[in-house]
Amino acid sequence: MRLTRLLKPRTAAHAHCDLPCGVYDPAQAKIEAESVKAIAEKYQQNEDPVFRIRALIIKEQRAELVKHHLWVLWTDYFKPPHFQKYPQLHDLFNRATKQAGAAGGKGSVDPAVAQQLIELIDEIAKIFWETKQA
Amino acid sequence: MRLTRLLKPRTAAHAHCDLPCGVYDPAQAKIEAESVKAIAEKYQQNEDPVFRIRALIIKEQRAELVKHHLWVLWTDYFKPPHFQKYPQLHDLFNRATKQAGAAGGKGSVDPAVAQQLIELIDEIAKIFWETKQA
Amino acid sequence: MRLTRLLKPRTAAHAHCDLPCGVYDPAQAKIEAESVKAIAEKYQQNEDPVFRIRALIIKEQRAELVKHHLWVLWTDYFKPPHFQKYPQLHDLFNRATKQAGAAGGKGSVDPAVAQQLIELIDEIAKIFWETKQA
Amino acid sequence: MRLTRLLKPRTAAHAHCDLPCGVYDPAQAKIEAESVKAIAEKYQQNEDPVFRIRALIIKEQRAELVKHHLWVLWTDYFKPPHFQKYPQLHDLFNRATKQAGAAGGKGSVDPAVAQQLIELIDEIAKIFWETKQA
Amino acid sequence: MRLTRLLKPRTAAHAHCDLPCGVYDPAQAKIEAESVKAIAEKYQQNEDPVFRIRALIIKEQRAELVKHHLWVLWTDYFKPPHFQKYPQLHDLFNRATKQAGAAGGKGSVDPAVAQQLIELIDEIAKIFWETKQA
Amino acid sequence: MRLTRLLKPRTAAHAHCDLPCGVYDPAQAKIEAESVKAIAEKYQQNEDPVFRIRALIIKEQRAELVKHHLWVLWTDYFKPPHFQKYPQLHDLFNRATKQAGAAGGKGSVDPAVAQQLIELIDEIAKIFWETKQA
Repeated sequence: MRLTRLLKPRTAAHAHCDLPCGVYDPAQAKIEAESVKAIAEKYQQNEDPVFRIRALIIKEQRAELVKHHLWVLWTDYFKPPHFQKYPQLHDLFNRATKQAGAAGGKGSVDPAVAQQLIELIDEIAKIFWETKQA
Repeated sequence: MRLTRLLKPRTAAHAHCDLPCGVYDPAQAKIEAESVKAIAEKYQQNEDPVFRIRALIIKEQRAELVKHHLWVLWTDYFKPPHFQKYPQLHDLFNRATKQAGAAGGKGSVDPAVAQQLIELIDEIAKIFWETKQA
Repeated sequence: MRLTRLLKPRTAAHAHCDLPCGVYDPAQAKIEAESVKAIAEKYQQNEDPVFRIRALIIKEQRAELVKHHLWVLWTDYFKPPHFQKYPQLHDLFNRATKQAGAAGGKGSVDPAVAQQLIELIDEIAKIFWETKQA
Repeated sequence: MRLTRLLKPRTAAHAHCDLPCGVYDPAQAKIEAESVKAIAEKYQQNEDPVFRIRALIIKEQRAELVKHHLWVLWTDYFKPPHFQKYPQLHDLFNRATKQAGAAGGKGSVDPAVAQQLIELIDEIAKIFWETKQA
Repeated sequence: MRLTRLLKPRTAAHAHCDLPCGVYDPAQAKIEAESVKAIAEKYQQNEDPVFRIRALIIKEQRAELVKHHLWVLWTDYFKPPHFQKYPQLHDLFNRATKQAGAAGGKGSVDPAVAQQLIELIDEIAKIFWETKQA
Repeated sequence: MRLTRLLKPRTAAHAHCDLPCGVYDPAQAKIEAESVKAIAEKYQQNEDPVFRIRALIIKEQRAELVKHHLWVLWTDYFKPPHFQKYPQLHDLFNRATKQAGAAGGKGSVDPAVAQQLIELIDEIAKIFWETKQA
């Protein structure tokens, strides 16, 4: 088969395979959320202002990664049948990403707020692993 | 007020203000989606394999930006009352980001698939501007 | 045609088409500049040091995006005939990107400085749309 | 205490705490390495050239993330006493990151090469968890 | 001095110092441009399509870095007196960044095109070092 | 040769060539380390808190780039025979990247700490150039 044919435009999206769909793991979001919590704890225990400013810079990045990993799960892993079976899933992801953002892990340096984020991710992970076993 | 006090941990998230909440515009997602469509069109018109590989590389990046801008709107701009008033909003964003991803703008080089993405963004934009006027 | 031939090096640059040239919009720079201004305003209205440090982190990123979007327009969109017709264009872009950088939107948290940045982008946008209509 | 004093330069590095040291997990590198392997497998099963080019683009990014996560463990988590106790550790990390790079996961689309990368990460993870329990 | 005063908005941009102005070096752009040239040479010598696609992906990234390093010099290092003394400087930078972009290093895999990019950077570097000695 | 054959998986990694191996230069790490030092010096000379927070944000980024450039040299440039000939090389890189990280350039705003980082990079550069001449 020739390249000119091989490279011609395809009119149908790949329905059978979402590269790279095979490997998803809520652990990615959770590790970053645990980092957000650990940073908040260290921030509380250290009054050095240079340390605290660095903590806020790094926490901002880690919380953004939490959001990103959750968004990827929501868009790339979960499919319409999942949202039908778990009608709370949209809202759960929206609350979790908000919790990782300015309303939560980014805007606050309270470990309890980061803990709530971890618990929301745990709820998502529970559903995730149920769908993997199904 | 002293720095030691100013820098002490806050237990309440900022409820009144999501920095940087004030400036959102669905145009960001739409410009990138139009870029995805334009790349698909140029790809179809140019059989040079180096050009086509570059087109796929750049389209991958642009489609990722579409997803990112949409995710930001969904998490950072839209609030629970919006989701109550527009019950289709979660699904609309999920379909739009899927359309920007492997099932759509990323996995396909068909301008018609990119056009469907633009139309989903237009639907979101319509709701966005209604909520801004409310 | 065979891949070995299709993939062989090209000695001529693509003169007719700068992928992805078709889609440019000064709105990208302006939205980020408006974000820089909004952040400066919120910074002024909120003395919480955690909020202020976050504001400075995010403003730094947004101002960098302003620079990037302007640089792309200057290098990728505008061509020699444009620079001949608008001899002030080089200087205008240089001042605008400087205004987005340390001398302006990055180094200052004064909304008036961000407003000057927006006005420089508006000047560029005016020329941009004139060249699109030409 | 005044800000002028709080913000004055520190001459001693923080010896007791490497922000953000608390949260490391070799799972981050392994998830990306599994993604590299899954992409190589899908590549083998799908001759569509657009799919294959996308697979190579994404594999390049995932393999880069493997390298990054491993580098972070090597520099930020492991300390001189670890390197004394595990004299093979430097070489193990160097081989693993090379395996993730051009010599391995990046340069090859053979799932067996990605599998070797996963096994090297497993060796690192084994040592990592031993040091955590110590 | 109190934090409330220290953190209040400044109305004047820092005129005396553009953080981080002190360290610029055209070598950054040149190293990446040499990488673009080396990639083009290797591409010519290796017909393996996986190698070639990887070469195009990496060349795209390296050429983007050339553009970025040049833009930074143009906006952050060079000041109005430099542009007065070297009236060709705006055009030289514009041509060099175009040469790094789709019209040159990105769109072509011809080492000669990358060589022209290196020569443009050498011209910029010559002026740069003259201004440093002034 | 056909694309179906050209694109089939390769079982052997490219032993002769690590794209993009040809162009490495310790100057990349050193320029960023000099930037870290210059930022620390300016920080000391300027008590403006906005300036200082920006300095810490930018220093964090520059120090991260030092780490990245050093990691690339360690993994991509240096080969087993180099590590045999220079048995101190693993430890030297590990100390240098730690010095660029939280224990050094990131965690400290002392120019002397950044100077130590520069000296470690100089040691690496000396070995690098010896291996290039060999």
